[in-house]
Amino acid sequence: VSAKSRGSIGIVGGAGPFAGLDLHAKILAETAASQDQDYPTIFVISQPELITDRTAYLQGKTSKNPATAIADQILRLEEMGATVAAIPCNTAHAPAIFERILALLREGGSRIQLLHMIMETRRHLQAHFPAISRVGVLSTTGTYSARIYPTMLIPAGYEVLVPEKATQEQSIHPAIYNPVYGLKANGYATDRARLALEDGILELIDKGAQAVIMGCTEIPLAFNRNKPVGTTLIDPTRVLARALIYKADSAKLKPKNSTQTETSSQK
Amino acid sequence: VSAKSRGSIGIVGGAGPFAGLDLHAKILAETAASQDQDYPTIFVISQPELITDRTAYLQGKTSKNPATAIADQILRLEEMGATVAAIPCNTAHAPAIFERILALLREGGSRIQLLHMIMETRRHLQAHFPAISRVGVLSTTGTYSARIYPTMLIPAGYEVLVPEKATQEQSIHPAIYNPVYGLKANGYATDRARLALEDGILELIDKGAQAVIMGCTEIPLAFNRNKPVGTTLIDPTRVLARALIYKADSAKLKPKNSTQTETSSQK
Repeated sequence: VSAKSRGSIGIVGGAGPFAGLDLHAKILAETAASQDQDYPTIFVISQPELITDRTAYLQGKTSKNPATAIADQILRLEEMGATVAAIPCNTAHAPAIFERILALLREGGSRIQLLHMIMETRRHLQAHFPAISRVGVLSTTGTYSARIYPTMLIPAGYEVLVPEKATQEQSIHPAIYNPVYGLKANGYATDRARLALEDGILELIDKGAQAVIMGCTEIPLAFNRNKPVGTTLIDPTRVLARALIYKADSAKLKPKNSTQTETSSQK
Repeated sequence: VSAKSRGSIGIVGGAGPFAGLDLHAKILAETAASQDQDYPTIFVISQPELITDRTAYLQGKTSKNPATAIADQILRLEEMGATVAAIPCNTAHAPAIFERILALLREGGSRIQLLHMIMETRRHLQAHFPAISRVGVLSTTGTYSARIYPTMLIPAGYEVLVPEKATQEQSIHPAIYNPVYGLKANGYATDRARLALEDGILELIDKGAQAVIMGCTEIPLAFNRNKPVGTTLIDPTRVLARALIYKADSAKLKPKNSTQTETSSQK
């Protein structure tokens, strides 16, 4: 099989920059390989300056839809040779943004396969956690207010739990966005950011969550090394990484059980 | 200042895939930023399948010069908008490969600024370690046999120390290349790979090295978290990351002393 007959992966890497890097890292980690040449072809455009903040757009703080820059970048990834692409940003999957991206891709004559992070996560839950019905979600305030996960999961029979509004606005969103201690400013979790997110997870467990979705692509940065105990953490970035490999070249996907996709502590 | 007036960074990411990822990560880590939009524009092409193994080419095991695919990828990065680029692979800087890349870029009418990893590392040593004159180098056998670092450092007045041939071939190269325990197969250091590299560092210290250059871009993967003690470790990938940011948008470069570029233990 020549290189040309296989698919290539495109990553919209600037929303945010560390989430793009994390998706790229997880694609490599989920690939079965023994030498450089075994890894799939990956194209990354990380041009964050042109992509308006997704939450700011959803909250009406800017009228510039980030969809425009994202769709442009997907079209350029396709020109490079990408056959399948993803946007490692949950908030960009709010219908006000994602549907505009799809419309712009259609207008641009795109034939790329754009994966839907939230839909892939729902499929992952259904396939691998059939016993779970109450799911918690931690996210940006954009994803929270747009109710991206509830809209997608409730029709599939899930009960979806989110933090109280005060927790969301005073604790979870700042853990991601604060210019000093937030994940986006540092690319890793400061103690303050990690504590805020762990408190959020505990609140969701108290509400009855059997699993918690890390519903902002920066959140896994806090838990890639130090896993909180007491729940199953779902990482949509890793789910997306595996879906991208599968679509590009399914033979390169590591078997599911050889990777640690979730952390579960049966307490 | 608009986005267009600043430079953009291109990464030839497939030689090898983890080295490309590591360079991208170090660019983000060395950027002064408080929000997504502050990060520089980065384009990555990681297409390892098309790039022949550099050491295999230098050893005559294949007649296909990896320069062809690398130059093609740099031209495509330039088309994307990259104004400055780098190849995070020391072995690709052997004259037999690097000079061919430069010739192909000239033929292709390229105007991109291609940084030279080894030259940047020499400059870094001169600027930041003026007291050091005996430098050890750990590398692939390709870089070792092509004497890439000695050729560049000796004329600048350095004494360059490398492992004994047996250590190089039986221990250092396999730590990078072994399909089971090597860095390229795993993207991190297995215990066996790390021990082999640490033994190599000790051998270089015994020979009198005052600093050790991690002269293969996979080697820092073994020491990004666990630093060996007893010497100053020079990371050409981090040096390259800082040089790329400086060329693309110098205002975004973190001050040197706010980052841990080297590990030094004064024992």
